[in-house]
Amino acid sequence: MKLVVKNLDIATRGVLLNRLDARGIGVLNGDRVQVINPKNGISVTAFVEITSTIAQQGTLGVYRITNERLNLEDGAEIEIREAGRPASLDFIKKKMDGGKLTKEETLTIIKDVVRDDISAAELTAFITASYINPLDMNEVEHLTRAMVETGEQIKFASRPIVDKHSIGGVPGNKITFLVVPIIAASGLKIPKTSSRAITGAGGTADLMEVLSSVEFTSGEVQQMTDKVGGCIVWGGATNIAPADDKIIIQEYPFKIDARGQMLASVMAKKFAVGANLVVIDIPVGQNTKVPNMQEGRKLAREFIELGERLGIKVECALTYGDIPVGHSIGPKLEIIEALRVLEGSPDPNSFIQKSLSIAGIALEMAGKAQRGEGVAMAQNLLTSGKALEKMRQIIEIQGGDQKIRSSDIVPGEHQFVIKAPASGYVIEMNNRSLITLARTAGAPQDPGAGILLHAKKGKLVKVGEPLFTIFADRNWRLQNAIEEGRRLMPILVEGMLLDRVPPVSEL
Amino acid sequence: MKLVVKNLDIATRGVLLNRLDARGIGVLNGDRVQVINPKNGISVTAFVEITSTIAQQGTLGVYRITNERLNLEDGAEIEIREAGRPASLDFIKKKMDGGKLTKEETLTIIKDVVRDDISAAELTAFITASYINPLDMNEVEHLTRAMVETGEQIKFASRPIVDKHSIGGVPGNKITFLVVPIIAASGLKIPKTSSRAITGAGGTADLMEVLSSVEFTSGEVQQMTDKVGGCIVWGGATNIAPADDKIIIQEYPFKIDARGQMLASVMAKKFAVGANLVVIDIPVGQNTKVPNMQEGRKLAREFIELGERLGIKVECALTYGDIPVGHSIGPKLEIIEALRVLEGSPDPNSFIQKSLSIAGIALEMAGKAQRGEGVAMAQNLLTSGKALEKMRQIIEIQGGDQKIRSSDIVPGEHQFVIKAPASGYVIEMNNRSLITLARTAGAPQDPGAGILLHAKKGKLVKVGEPLFTIFADRNWRLQNAIEEGRRLMPILVEGMLLDRVPPVSEL
Repeated sequence: MKLVVKNLDIATRGVLLNRLDARGIGVLNGDRVQVINPKNGISVTAFVEITSTIAQQGTLGVYRITNERLNLEDGAEIEIREAGRPASLDFIKKKMDGGKLTKEETLTIIKDVVRDDISAAELTAFITASYINPLDMNEVEHLTRAMVETGEQIKFASRPIVDKHSIGGVPGNKITFLVVPIIAASGLKIPKTSSRAITGAGGTADLMEVLSSVEFTSGEVQQMTDKVGGCIVWGGATNIAPADDKIIIQEYPFKIDARGQMLASVMAKKFAVGANLVVIDIPVGQNTKVPNMQEGRKLAREFIELGERLGIKVECALTYGDIPVGHSIGPKLEIIEALRVLEGSPDPNSFIQKSLSIAGIALEMAGKAQRGEGVAMAQNLLTSGKALEKMRQIIEIQGGDQKIRSSDIVPGEHQFVIKAPASGYVIEMNNRSLITLARTAGAPQDPGAGILLHAKKGKLVKVGEPLFTIFADRNWRLQNAIEEGRRLMPILVEGMLLDRVPPVSEL
Repeated sequence: MKLVVKNLDIATRGVLLNRLDARGIGVLNGDRVQVINPKNGISVTAFVEITSTIAQQGTLGVYRITNERLNLEDGAEIEIREAGRPASLDFIKKKMDGGKLTKEETLTIIKDVVRDDISAAELTAFITASYINPLDMNEVEHLTRAMVETGEQIKFASRPIVDKHSIGGVPGNKITFLVVPIIAASGLKIPKTSSRAITGAGGTADLMEVLSSVEFTSGEVQQMTDKVGGCIVWGGATNIAPADDKIIIQEYPFKIDARGQMLASVMAKKFAVGANLVVIDIPVGQNTKVPNMQEGRKLAREFIELGERLGIKVECALTYGDIPVGHSIGPKLEIIEALRVLEGSPDPNSFIQKSLSIAGIALEMAGKAQRGEGVAMAQNLLTSGKALEKMRQIIEIQGGDQKIRSSDIVPGEHQFVIKAPASGYVIEMNNRSLITLARTAGAPQDPGAGILLHAKKGKLVKVGEPLFTIFADRNWRLQNAIEEGRRLMPILVEGMLLDRVPPVSEL
């Protein structure tokens, strides 16, 4: 059936068909159709929604994301027909039934994911099936390669190319802002693509956005890395392993991060940017994704094995993940803390030591430092100011102000200090509650929102001393966060009552 | 945030928010919001889509299905806020992790399903998890009761109330059109709710629609049954066990029918219409849902156990499901065949014998006939014309023409006869291929479309004799079906070449 296009400014996928036309080609609400642009032959699959008025008979409403691939103007002629059932669905069913997916089957599924030829619900079935019937290492390798093949890849002219990755779950884990400039300052190349927060209070990309643009093509990532040695960009803009974002969005409601998909997700991005030396930071702790050392070592072995299959040398660092890294949580607060260290501040120790350890491993892997001397070399690159200088080059090449200083960045204007309700040692900090609190205050969308910790686990505090400050860009969000803070009590002081909620003013 | 409503005639769920308002309340595309009608306090959850133009700042676009519950007019004021994460998601996650769901957890999920508080993708995760980690009998009972409680229920003043159900998968299984009038003619009550085809060539409701309306409230179902003893309606219109349809739609892409959900689906509807005597027809055969007798007996025991838990007496009949029942597939063709039998035709034997067996079991269960004499009584009700008379009453009370005769119904005007390519016995009929073929011809949306079988398995045919006729209401669909028929070869004649596809004219 030939129809005339009417673009609809709705940020979603799909097409809107008049009831009469739907009957004409025999499709129902929710059915899959093929939309073909006869001018260039481009064809996309879309799911149909039905109207009696918004699209007249003979007209096809095209939603914005679907039209990003079709690129049709109002009034253009298109051809529409019922779409067949994608073979992917049979392969997903196979996985539901406990089968093992071949390389070709996995690639077919991931191609359909990237092209949106399967629906969010169908993708969720794949994710759920792979979560319950875990992917074996062959399947993980297939998935990794499929994710790489269905996106863009960077091929650097020379090796080594270094990369790092931190498994999420630990708030304030801003180590990329020391590791990348240190590695680049050593003369190595580190094209760092990172994510925005989905469940966190600020992904590395959200943080970097305080300083510069983070949206670049993969070609630009390559050029910037060739020029200054490194960059810190949002992977979502690069079209590197685009299937990954689509999978992560569907995992979000259930807060799952299936091991096989997590391995593939991390390593596909490393492989696609051309990295051959990778350090993986695996935070271990009760409120992180890896609850204990045994699980951490198992995961490390899996990363290493997958790396071997892909020709990537991997080392893993199990790190202490029970409490936040440094004192700040939230984009601007974390960037202030990172810049201060680059500018010479000796605090906070947890943040500096962790960053130097990860950077040190990479320097040793690349042969820049002897085994056991990586940390010292990293320390030297930091204290000499070379890392700061490199960070400024990175900020500049990404379109930011290279002269920016930590003191130029102003966090959220609405603030509330939570004080110790009793004297005693800080005996518990709950990562998840801290993240929830920072998010309630507006992080990461509101860059000034977040939490600044004044006392960390083990510190002796006196009653009335500040425990932490909540920052927000908007007052109503601060009020919500204060209320949420009363409920969550993310930091516990020894001797503090647990069975009675104090009024806000006394918290 | 307060906004003004703009109704959008799009047959889907959700709300359309201006980009600036979305930023104001801090929600992103796909986020869940609460929409509250301040006039009546009704609040629904909806997923957000974002626009810059179709809804202006200060305006909330409301899609049609979401507005069915809110009932808002253009210009009405509503309140919108970010919605919390439903507890259902945690329970679904528990099922993913192999946990057992309690009665309360199951009810929470099913309530959210019925209210559309969880997305299609989230529901698919539940379905996938329940398919891979099968529900045990306690969970099946919880699910059944939850499906009943979240919909309407019929309470008849007296018992017994009879019901029947056929497990799907066998084309042409129109036995309801003999069983219901026979049972009602015996003086028993049988309020039959049935489904429309999702994967089939015609559900009972699609067939009945050839004769009368099938959309009635549960109150009307009760009244009609009290008046004439029975009815044949579409369950989807009654609001009986409404969760079931939503689940089935999500199972469709994967062609799954998880055992626990199937048990709950069938028995919830029987329970909700007040039935206490139920006969279940379980077709067994290679191309049905139950591949062999062992599986059939196991399923029968499960139905009986679930019935006992619910206070419903269940008997199951394992029936021959390898080939179609009768000679016709598709709404009008099947109704013609059923009416002919009610009018006195002695053919087709497979259809008549199966219907009498099922009706006979019900008559014996209800004590209308002695054990072993149910079939004879059913036969008598059929040949005496009492069943026809009862069927006419049912047609009339459902708003159809009670004088209608089989010869009044005209099947699809576009027809093509497939002839035997060789002489020999019919050695195979493939149910799934026959269904696919009937659907390609337009069934069930086009009521005249379908297949009429001239030879069934075991019959000796001569080359050139008709094997079957394809009927279609529209010529292009007939052409598609002819092509599909060449590919599928749903009926095989001994001696027929299998490794060579003959041109259409010779098929």
